[in-house]
Amino acid sequence: MALNPDRLLPLEPEPRAVARRLFAEVERLPIVSPHGHTDPLWYADDAPFPDPARLFVVPDHYIFRMLYSQGVPLEALGVPRIDGAPSETDGRAIWRIFAENFGLFRGTPSRLWFEHSMERVFGIEERLSAANADTLYDAIAARLAEPEMRPRALFDRFGIEAISTTDSAIDDLAAHDRIRASGWTGRVLPCYRPDAVIDADRPDFAASIARLLELTGQPQTYAGYLEAHRIRRAYFKARGATATDHGHPTARTAALTPAEAGLLFDKVAGGGASLAETELFRAQMLTEMARMSLDDGLVMQIHAGSMRNHNAALAARFGLDKGADIPTRTDYVRALKPLLDELGNEPQLTIILFTLDETVYSRELAPLAGHYPALRLGPPWWFFDSPEGMRRFRETATETAGFYNTVGFNDDTRAFLSIPARHDVARRVDCAYLARLVADGRLDEDEAHELSLDLAYRLAKQAYRL
Amino acid sequence: MALNPDRLLPLEPEPRAVARRLFAEVERLPIVSPHGHTDPLWYADDAPFPDPARLFVVPDHYIFRMLYSQGVPLEALGVPRIDGAPSETDGRAIWRIFAENFGLFRGTPSRLWFEHSMERVFGIEERLSAANADTLYDAIAARLAEPEMRPRALFDRFGIEAISTTDSAIDDLAAHDRIRASGWTGRVLPCYRPDAVIDADRPDFAASIARLLELTGQPQTYAGYLEAHRIRRAYFKARGATATDHGHPTARTAALTPAEAGLLFDKVAGGGASLAETELFRAQMLTEMARMSLDDGLVMQIHAGSMRNHNAALAARFGLDKGADIPTRTDYVRALKPLLDELGNEPQLTIILFTLDETVYSRELAPLAGHYPALRLGPPWWFFDSPEGMRRFRETATETAGFYNTVGFNDDTRAFLSIPARHDVARRVDCAYLARLVADGRLDEDEAHELSLDLAYRLAKQAYRL
Amino acid sequence: MALNPDRLLPLEPEPRAVARRLFAEVERLPIVSPHGHTDPLWYADDAPFPDPARLFVVPDHYIFRMLYSQGVPLEALGVPRIDGAPSETDGRAIWRIFAENFGLFRGTPSRLWFEHSMERVFGIEERLSAANADTLYDAIAARLAEPEMRPRALFDRFGIEAISTTDSAIDDLAAHDRIRASGWTGRVLPCYRPDAVIDADRPDFAASIARLLELTGQPQTYAGYLEAHRIRRAYFKARGATATDHGHPTARTAALTPAEAGLLFDKVAGGGASLAETELFRAQMLTEMARMSLDDGLVMQIHAGSMRNHNAALAARFGLDKGADIPTRTDYVRALKPLLDELGNEPQLTIILFTLDETVYSRELAPLAGHYPALRLGPPWWFFDSPEGMRRFRETATETAGFYNTVGFNDDTRAFLSIPARHDVARRVDCAYLARLVADGRLDEDEAHELSLDLAYRLAKQAYRL
Repeated sequence: MALNPDRLLPLEPEPRAVARRLFAEVERLPIVSPHGHTDPLWYADDAPFPDPARLFVVPDHYIFRMLYSQGVPLEALGVPRIDGAPSETDGRAIWRIFAENFGLFRGTPSRLWFEHSMERVFGIEERLSAANADTLYDAIAARLAEPEMRPRALFDRFGIEAISTTDSAIDDLAAHDRIRASGWTGRVLPCYRPDAVIDADRPDFAASIARLLELTGQPQTYAGYLEAHRIRRAYFKARGATATDHGHPTARTAALTPAEAGLLFDKVAGGGASLAETELFRAQMLTEMARMSLDDGLVMQIHAGSMRNHNAALAARFGLDKGADIPTRTDYVRALKPLLDELGNEPQLTIILFTLDETVYSRELAPLAGHYPALRLGPPWWFFDSPEGMRRFRETATETAGFYNTVGFNDDTRAFLSIPARHDVARRVDCAYLARLVADGRLDEDEAHELSLDLAYRLAKQAYRL
Repeated sequence: MALNPDRLLPLEPEPRAVARRLFAEVERLPIVSPHGHTDPLWYADDAPFPDPARLFVVPDHYIFRMLYSQGVPLEALGVPRIDGAPSETDGRAIWRIFAENFGLFRGTPSRLWFEHSMERVFGIEERLSAANADTLYDAIAARLAEPEMRPRALFDRFGIEAISTTDSAIDDLAAHDRIRASGWTGRVLPCYRPDAVIDADRPDFAASIARLLELTGQPQTYAGYLEAHRIRRAYFKARGATATDHGHPTARTAALTPAEAGLLFDKVAGGGASLAETELFRAQMLTEMARMSLDDGLVMQIHAGSMRNHNAALAARFGLDKGADIPTRTDYVRALKPLLDELGNEPQLTIILFTLDETVYSRELAPLAGHYPALRLGPPWWFFDSPEGMRRFRETATETAGFYNTVGFNDDTRAFLSIPARHDVARRVDCAYLARLVADGRLDEDEAHELSLDLAYRLAKQAYRL
Repeated sequence: MALNPDRLLPLEPEPRAVARRLFAEVERLPIVSPHGHTDPLWYADDAPFPDPARLFVVPDHYIFRMLYSQGVPLEALGVPRIDGAPSETDGRAIWRIFAENFGLFRGTPSRLWFEHSMERVFGIEERLSAANADTLYDAIAARLAEPEMRPRALFDRFGIEAISTTDSAIDDLAAHDRIRASGWTGRVLPCYRPDAVIDADRPDFAASIARLLELTGQPQTYAGYLEAHRIRRAYFKARGATATDHGHPTARTAALTPAEAGLLFDKVAGGGASLAETELFRAQMLTEMARMSLDDGLVMQIHAGSMRNHNAALAARFGLDKGADIPTRTDYVRALKPLLDELGNEPQLTIILFTLDETVYSRELAPLAGHYPALRLGPPWWFFDSPEGMRRFRETATETAGFYNTVGFNDDTRAFLSIPARHDVARRVDCAYLARLVADGRLDEDEAHELSLDLAYRLAKQAYRL
């Protein structure tokens, strides 16, 4: 294996030479990770990571999704069942299945991330296989016991300048408070994610709303509910948050009158809303959140277009987020209009849009972001956090939106070890893209150098107000 | 002309060298053709092919579609009229039109396939033109009379290990029986295609249903109708079939209760169904077919998204399938959910999905196939059976679905001579893609070798259970 | 800066060499500009262009859109307000803002066009920046005062063989008459664009209809209205027009009975039509226009899929066409069927289709144009008039539609100086595409030479009947 130092750079000599020069300057830049799903407890507790299987396989839906698609039961991969029925608990047994099926990941970003972690974090240059499964398991397990493999040490070693977690609006952020109280200087920020108190289609909605109002001492009225959001946003902001995040099935927004919105809230909070009404409520809340962002300066992220828990049987057996969220066709042009009509022209507001429907880049998102001062384009998300996904993003968005309506990279991951690997891929793909523009006569090399720094580091910091 | 030995391989030296090594090992592998539309009578009768025009022009809708788009009447190309009005019968006259307009095919896969056939089958290295039309016509016509140009000889010469035809559910498969009875050892399989007895929008639906029930001795009830399918599937299976195929306007599936399905069948079979009801019946039948596949092991293929016979005037004059089938936007995420909710988690079931809407690869099909054990992705179909179409397929599907949720290549053709040409293109494009991954540092070369064999040969055999 | 002579050509040595040979033969071909928005008054008056800011910034929505997206108020860019509130009038101040923000255009076609104009028209090889803003402003301003910088001189210098403007159906074409009367031999044609008298959603619709009927002496009946169109089309044709152009929100067509169409017209002309009815009227009129084109030979262009004036607040402040037209998902397969059922098989009719939804090329437009004799594909439009947009067009359309169902390039611009730059980009990208086909073994070089001439020059002339 041994990582190819030129991986993902252009194959033609001229742009490759340019790309090498560009990448040399950004390869070791600090990592700004403004959106992701790492667990704040890691940084608070600084406990060792568990065994190799529980580090690489069990929690990574990219990994177990692919194995499952080829017939491996999730139980055999240690994914816990909701009903308490047994799942594999022997890390080594799980790891062997992964090793035997490692060929399934050929051509996928998971393979790239895994190899990067193996070499850079564990110093392992062998390709995983059935033959070396046990040896590598032991080597990794041994390393995991060492102090420099604890979260804070890795945080420093990875050169993370700042990282944002993603936290429920009703989370007490105790882990974040403990990080600050510990005296450790690593910058870990919370992010306000209020889906649980906005999406009435979720089973936990009623309980979440009740908790929100209890936490903030607000009555169950629309005004009280909005005030509760304001209070919680301030609570997050006081703990370092600079952004909110919204995972909605669609990008639909609404601008109801206060009276209409109040009636809708009563229905939704009362539990009697139809699917159309819960969708409208989510739409209205995107606009409300944007209004609050204009007031409190929190950057707003919209992650739209995922149909969650497509596999009903699997969700019933293993719970949510077990690899069966499937993208859907997503409209932004009509969906965002109510919000944009009111707030799109505000240069003080920053709304970062993400999509799982690549067709919208050239048709909808780049034209929108290339016009509205409030809009920016987030990097390729989820299935598109990959070399081809990133390349297509630049090729379809840049000519209309330019580079400066994009916000650099974010890794969006819960797999801590993959963070440097993902930034490495993003920096390489961006340098490759810029190098082609230079070789193509579309950009001067000094500009490409400036841009590569912007895309690798500066734009994320600036867009997320870090 | 003289085929460029490096055609379709990467243009950069490093990946080209890798691609050459990969391609050298797969170029001469046997051809597995698990889905196509060749005529079983060819193999049963082993009669000579007719003249050059009737071999290359008259039956090939890729060819006459393009000529028609530039104003050549189909009558002049020998396409027979339904009303018996005259069409050109002189093969040489038809061929001359093709030759004069050969430039229209620049940049199309038809050009690639034609040139490959000319050189490899006929030893002709001249580019067709008005000037050499007659000479080439005579040369081809002379060769067609030779014994080694008969279907069985070509079958052997092409190295076809197995080929599947596509046959109506009510076909008696007499040609298939004759092939077996003849003692010839070429492996030709039928495939169960029940569209005529499922799609009530077809003019021949009532007659086809009647024939189905008659053939199987079943009553015209839903239970009888389903049993008739089971009997016919067994009939096909006994003659070697390993798969079924379903050409539906959409991928919609349904999971009605038996009572609902029975009522719907009565309405549909009675001839009084609305368009919404015939669509729902097709949807229900995809689920029924999947249930039967789980029982009898026949692999299920779904070819969705073609709006057949878009050109009403042309269909009235020349009949169906005369080049005016146009793709439409196709949804799979919601459409397949009813079927997947019931059967998607069955590793014993194989459903191969095809599409004419490329946007669904990265957004819908790769995420679905990268999760559900029952799903696999078929190769690029029809307009996308082309170098760019194949390249985009790999680039948009692989990162999420991997290679092993795809099923290798199938030529899907009724043009016998184009079979080796099409497999040649597919093997080259896949080797080129793999070679780029190697040069890019995303894959090791030994893995690329294994993959190139998988994509060229093994996966098709395995997925189609040959 | 200094333009790279190989810009946009392939980066691999073999196709680059081919591309250079191809491009050398087309680089200096005359420009045929069959569709665009230059002002006929320029050619009639031959007055000097105003200052650099009013030449490059104020009228160019590509430029001010991008600056606006990053927070620059349109007032500061000199875009006039509807309410008469002040906008910047100092060209130098506007130019400085542009210069300070020139980096925003990195990677965009605007950057390519601007640099080409700077070097080729003004002889300036420095990259614009805050530092040289004033120097370059002065240099350009000085040049603009010279006689060889007047429109007619530039027309000749650019090698424009023919150019079409786009004119309202109720325009008197006085400027066109003055051009002809002047004795100047530059070929400037009008184009019949009847949106104002067809689209009842426009605020000026009633007044426009009244004017149309007045101009033609027709009564306000459907028959009179259609006759008025015929009269005006003849008026345009007498002044050299060879084409009509239709900018509709969708590509929907209709084939109502005369009685239905008459009733619909009465409702629409009476001002009481619903949005569904105005859409249906536009649909019906596309079919009527196609019928008239079959009679009078005017080539029909359909530019569908733009949602105009998405930013309501901006439209209220600055008027229409201020950069906030956003593409939407567009269907062609069902939308065009009524028109195609009646007229699609007419080889004498030419309908050129444009789109802002790239996904339709491979799925809808190439299959349609590769079949119907009446259809041709226009070049990439607007946001897609760019290197990547053009490359994707060829890659997604050619394999199914071929080259000869496309119509060469048109610049579609109101920025006179960008015309040679845009044709330069198109010729380069097409030569690059052809050179890859040659190097790839898909095309012979002699054919590529013929094709490069076709794409750069002949096809536009032929398709637009110039």
